[in-house]
Amino acid sequence: MKEFELIARLAKSLPTNESVVTGAGDDCAVLDFRLPDKLLLFKTDAAVEGFHFTRETSPEKVGRKALARCLSDIAAMAGTPTAALVTIALPENFDAEFVVRIYKGLNALAEKSGVAIVGGETTTNPERILISIALLGTVARGKQILRSGAKTGDAIFVTGELGGSLAEKHLDFEPRLIEARWLAEHFSIHAMTDLSDGLAGDLPHVLKASGVGAELLKSAIPVSREAKLAARRSSSAKPAFAAALTDGEDFELLFTVAGGDSVELLDTWKEKFPQLKLSCIGKIVAGDGILIRDKSGSHKLNANGYVHFA
Amino acid sequence: MKEFELIARLAKSLPTNESVVTGAGDDCAVLDFRLPDKLLLFKTDAAVEGFHFTRETSPEKVGRKALARCLSDIAAMAGTPTAALVTIALPENFDAEFVVRIYKGLNALAEKSGVAIVGGETTTNPERILISIALLGTVARGKQILRSGAKTGDAIFVTGELGGSLAEKHLDFEPRLIEARWLAEHFSIHAMTDLSDGLAGDLPHVLKASGVGAELLKSAIPVSREAKLAARRSSSAKPAFAAALTDGEDFELLFTVAGGDSVELLDTWKEKFPQLKLSCIGKIVAGDGILIRDKSGSHKLNANGYVHFA
Repeated sequence: MKEFELIARLAKSLPTNESVVTGAGDDCAVLDFRLPDKLLLFKTDAAVEGFHFTRETSPEKVGRKALARCLSDIAAMAGTPTAALVTIALPENFDAEFVVRIYKGLNALAEKSGVAIVGGETTTNPERILISIALLGTVARGKQILRSGAKTGDAIFVTGELGGSLAEKHLDFEPRLIEARWLAEHFSIHAMTDLSDGLAGDLPHVLKASGVGAELLKSAIPVSREAKLAARRSSSAKPAFAAALTDGEDFELLFTVAGGDSVELLDTWKEKFPQLKLSCIGKIVAGDGILIRDKSGSHKLNANGYVHFA
Repeated sequence: MKEFELIARLAKSLPTNESVVTGAGDDCAVLDFRLPDKLLLFKTDAAVEGFHFTRETSPEKVGRKALARCLSDIAAMAGTPTAALVTIALPENFDAEFVVRIYKGLNALAEKSGVAIVGGETTTNPERILISIALLGTVARGKQILRSGAKTGDAIFVTGELGGSLAEKHLDFEPRLIEARWLAEHFSIHAMTDLSDGLAGDLPHVLKASGVGAELLKSAIPVSREAKLAARRSSSAKPAFAAALTDGEDFELLFTVAGGDSVELLDTWKEKFPQLKLSCIGKIVAGDGILIRDKSGSHKLNANGYVHFA
């Protein structure tokens, strides 16, 4: 059983109660605690040594990344983060200075993002460091943006550039909190998620949740300089376009708006966020799955995120 | 640097904001999200294979325990749990059925406790299973019970019996949610915590937070049948009284009330909870540390939780 099948099976039978607006399966859980104007957002995310960082990664960056991953999920709902708990599991007799440095990186990003660190624990995991962050936030009632709202005819947008994140960006990306709230405030955003598993990994979540398909324009997908450099450096490296689709850890926003809003969105975005690229990469279509168009025609993206172009 | 020193050092410089009522250092964080009548409680707790359970423990009990530990912390604040996120880190290609069984045990306790499971993730930890629960709850505004409220002259109470938990109870203990809320509603409880590290480990947290000491009566401390049996079974085993002080994982409530309330509390408790023992084990005194009195006099409990009686 694959992870997604397992999660789908588990998600069907989870206990619920009257506080639950959106449970498992979106970027954050959405909870109604009867605040007049707000809903709560609730999220956890774990970063594991050997998978999300190495023993050689600077501890400050490890701490920063652990929190930033969670912040990116709050951004994907157009929310505002409030308070976090930090669980650090690490080998016994581990250097305390290492933990202090993890917190240093984490605290700096928390301060910058207005997040209070309200506790947590250190516990033992003898073989490797694992950091799990639990994050609580809010979103204006009714303004949360789910993965499930994409509609046929929507334009699909991504912020920034994709691919090559492991060169550096996965450790110092900026969660798109401000941009996401601005989008939710000024446009009718139909669906949104953050790109943690790559465009080919995360766009299908939106499509499946919304019951639609997507047609992307190959030339419109913003491929990062790092992905291009890596591809050029070695002939055995992933082609740059494949890297942009599948590398993961971009932590950019992926969202859809009605096609008719596209031009105004691009214009006002450019004024508001001149430093951050926004790309319309395609449109939502009836059906399912992802088609990628280039000069030679349309190609179906396969389940592994790879597409073979003629 | 020991864990407590490390935590103390870290806790001094944590980012905060206007939502924080009580940050790191109590059983839960207490947050003010401007609900008119309630405050939020926020807690995470991790259970690690080899420390809190073994590969041989039934997965249902592992899941149950992971959640129960967090529920016990909500109880310690006199709160009501609402929603949880579940992080399960486990070796790659691990049997999915195992995860399903973890959720089965966890879901059953969640249902019983009125807790919604609103998501989480499975992630990879190649060498051992680690489960972290993030739990959100509420408490009536102003009714949260901290560790810091104990006063000289208070009577000290514990629920249930202590020691020997590893024989079985650590897997199937009942978080004292109902009892704690009843206590908060009917009595002026000055300070409360749950016993996860043993009386000798957890009472000092209350004393330190409150700036007081404690004098316990040896004969009043309720030693569990399991601790007595274990001590009888082997001459090299921990004496039963030492086990009651130091075994940990009792997950009973420890709390203090004004001395004058003791008799009424014991009387009404007996009517309300006839199945659960409540013991007055001593009193809060000026100073610091723990004295234990027996027929031979008073003995200072040392930092490791051991006391040598003549």
